Amino acid sequence: MISIDFTHDPSRESWVDSANDPGSDFPIQNLPYAVFHTGDGDQRIGIGIGNQIIDLRYLAEQGLLLDEFVSPCRSDVLNELMALSGPQRIQLRQLLSKLLVRSTDADQVLMKAGLRSQDSVEFCVPCRIQDYTDFYASIFHATNVGSMFRPNNPLLPNYKHIPIGYHGRASSVVISGTEVIRPIGQKAPAEEGGLPTRSPAVLLDYELEVGFFVAQGNELGSTIPIDKAEEHLFGMCLVNDWSARDLQKWEYQPLGPFLAKSFATTVSPWVVTMEALAPFRAAEYHRPEGDPKPLDYLTSDENSSKGGVDIQLKVSLSSQQMREKGLPAEHLSQTRFTNMYWTIAQILTHHASNGCNLQPGDLMASGTVSGPSRDQRGSMLELTWNGDANNPTPGTDRTPLRLPTGEERKFLADGDELILSGFCENSEYRRIGFGQCRGTVQPARR
Amino acid sequence: MISIDFTHDPSRESWVDSANDPGSDFPIQNLPYAVFHTGDGDQRIGIGIGNQIIDLRYLAEQGLLLDEFVSPCRSDVLNELMALSGPQRIQLRQLLSKLLVRSTDADQVLMKAGLRSQDSVEFCVPCRIQDYTDFYASIFHATNVGSMFRPNNPLLPNYKHIPIGYHGRASSVVISGTEVIRPIGQKAPAEEGGLPTRSPAVLLDYELEVGFFVAQGNELGSTIPIDKAEEHLFGMCLVNDWSARDLQKWEYQPLGPFLAKSFATTVSPWVVTMEALAPFRAAEYHRPEGDPKPLDYLTSDENSSKGGVDIQLKVSLSSQQMREKGLPAEHLSQTRFTNMYWTIAQILTHHASNGCNLQPGDLMASGTVSGPSRDQRGSMLELTWNGDANNPTPGTDRTPLRLPTGEERKFLADGDELILSGFCENSEYRRIGFGQCRGTVQPARR
Repeated sequence: MISIDFTHDPSRESWVDSANDPGSDFPIQNLPYAVFHTGDGDQRIGIGIGNQIIDLRYLAEQGLLLDEFVSPCRSDVLNELMALSGPQRIQLRQLLSKLLVRSTDADQVLMKAGLRSQDSVEFCVPCRIQDYTDFYASIFHATNVGSMFRPNNPLLPNYKHIPIGYHGRASSVVISGTEVIRPIGQKAPAEEGGLPTRSPAVLLDYELEVGFFVAQGNELGSTIPIDKAEEHLFGMCLVNDWSARDLQKWEYQPLGPFLAKSFATTVSPWVVTMEALAPFRAAEYHRPEGDPKPLDYLTSDENSSKGGVDIQLKVSLSSQQMREKGLPAEHLSQTRFTNMYWTIAQILTHHASNGCNLQPGDLMASGTVSGPSRDQRGSMLELTWNGDANNPTPGTDRTPLRLPTGEERKFLADGDELILSGFCENSEYRRIGFGQCRGTVQPARR
Repeated sequence: MISIDFTHDPSRESWVDSANDPGSDFPIQNLPYAVFHTGDGDQRIGIGIGNQIIDLRYLAEQGLLLDEFVSPCRSDVLNELMALSGPQRIQLRQLLSKLLVRSTDADQVLMKAGLRSQDSVEFCVPCRIQDYTDFYASIFHATNVGSMFRPNNPLLPNYKHIPIGYHGRASSVVISGTEVIRPIGQKAPAEEGGLPTRSPAVLLDYELEVGFFVAQGNELGSTIPIDKAEEHLFGMCLVNDWSARDLQKWEYQPLGPFLAKSFATTVSPWVVTMEALAPFRAAEYHRPEGDPKPLDYLTSDENSSKGGVDIQLKVSLSSQQMREKGLPAEHLSQTRFTNMYWTIAQILTHHASNGCNLQPGDLMASGTVSGPSRDQRGSMLELTWNGDANNPTPGTDRTPLRLPTGEERKFLADGDELILSGFCENSEYRRIGFGQCRGTVQPARR
């Protein structure tokens, strides 16, 4: 596990003034990576600092970085940087922290030419994602969904032993802000033996998830022991795993979700590194006493004592009517990443446990992060308890959401913007944030 | 659909003599693409002709190709070439056919310097596969497998309406000849409520599949109408979708196969183009009268009349003992690709029907190609009817295979080599082949 060092010192301030605002997601203690361009498509890697982003290619070309970092920092995606060793990643973080700290040493005039306002740039998917895998690691989410679709058998017998996951579609992973077009697809016949229909998804949903990117990978045929898993984690982001529930219900057996998910998966631009998250590692993750212990290959003392990451997560929604009336986005739910049943180390180790090769830049997502109470649910499906009036599930608290405009929502309407955000906070260290992961639903294209 | 032209003329012969052998998979009527290197890792694109491969980078550099083909033919993977338009692909095929035909015009001395014996090169995965999707398009396979695991409900209600598929793992797609290491994984508890175990897969299996590569793709949010699907198909190959049935059974619910498949998927080196396959298009694919018609978006006259591809497929197995005794590989089964319930055009159109973006080089596999009779089954699971003595299914024809050495097989043993092959043959045109897709099972690495 990564040690706390001077870069985490909460008294540290930056010469970029906005980074010192107490509410900033991006103080000098964070230093998340992103990939951006300034309208010309010339993608560059940057570091978030306050409301600015500093261009790493520029810093490399000015000779401000060590030789070994020049090539990865001049790249147009993060993959080469993600493939650095753990000690190298720490060294680069320390170097960047020293360049950005408020002191008389740093050549601010030189560096200021590499600063761009975050408002002025366009963000890109931060790396070439060769493979994207989505998990199902919140037992609250799995139990909620299972209760709706398999009321007699909500949690399958493998759940407490296997971090359940499935391969996702990498090509349709899009950056925050990309419009999400309502998919068209097949839906179950109205009556048994009838013909299915095909029309725009009505039960369109979001899923609040946390993603993590692989650092150094493993060769095909080798595995990643749980004790080494943390070395293979580069950093984390927010993920909205958009889901068309009506398509999913009809297509998902026996081989799992497919077109119900592959129309879009939105990631936030900022990759918050495992180094930045070091002060927020947590013992707590949700495996109650009495539950079976994971098998040995998923067990280590370090994982048990601080395998969790204490990220607070929020979802809000803004309808087109709300925006037209100047109303702020409506808060839907808030949950914590410590509610997960499986840690990110367990997920990564399990993924490679059959010899499957992971590669720098591979994206894994947690699955919907739901907590035990209603206001901690990470999807509309759970918040409205499958709010489909034609398909009630007896004995549940199905309740449409009411927006400040009086509009009701069972699922997402065209024009709805979903905004995910996340941050880490405790009494000892400086709060750091993930920024936002946004997407607006567009009408289906017939 | 692609027209028959002079490149298909069965009387056409090449100045590469081995291409004129009646048994050759690679006559001048075929001209499949592959990517190879000669031991130095310097990957090049080549065309198979007889027992030779001709180096397209060399031809491009000698000025023998048109300007527009120089860049794609100098690449180290096929993606740029796959992204050419349909008319460009035909033009390049015609040009290569003219260069390789037996005539006094072709500058054989110049071209011969670009020939390599196929035995002397190492083949590579032919393109950068951004996404790999595996389907389940043989109703015979789906019914066989369903009968074993869901005897009361073998074929799910969606099967005749949706080309069922799931995202596969792209990183572990390997080229023919790559060793396949037996995976280790979790298996179901011996009794209900017990703990799972973790050990090397015992029920290791192959799946005989046909793959196809996407040519030009589609933008996220757009679709590919069934009438246009053929334009987006580049070519086909053989695929062995190795499967660990004991891992699969325990992990696959509710999100589908994961580690049971992601340890290795083997592809053949040769990509047989849709142009080469034009004489072998077939009306027949297996949708019996009385079955529901596919929904409109999956229906077109052209698809119904010649959406099939008449490929004959064979599987054979060679155990280590057999090789030590100098015995030839044992034939296991033979089937035809016209046994599929869904055509490749329907599969492609369905995949993009929710707006999912496909990209040049994406690989889709058919799912196990099984036919109606026992000797047409494309997996060991089906041939031995889940040959697990501890888990019998009453009323089935479970029979272990007996090899010429007297060895018995219920599933694959360490040292077993699987050899898939395929060819197209009819009375009017020259027979063309796919070469082989081979892989040998190696012991698990503890």
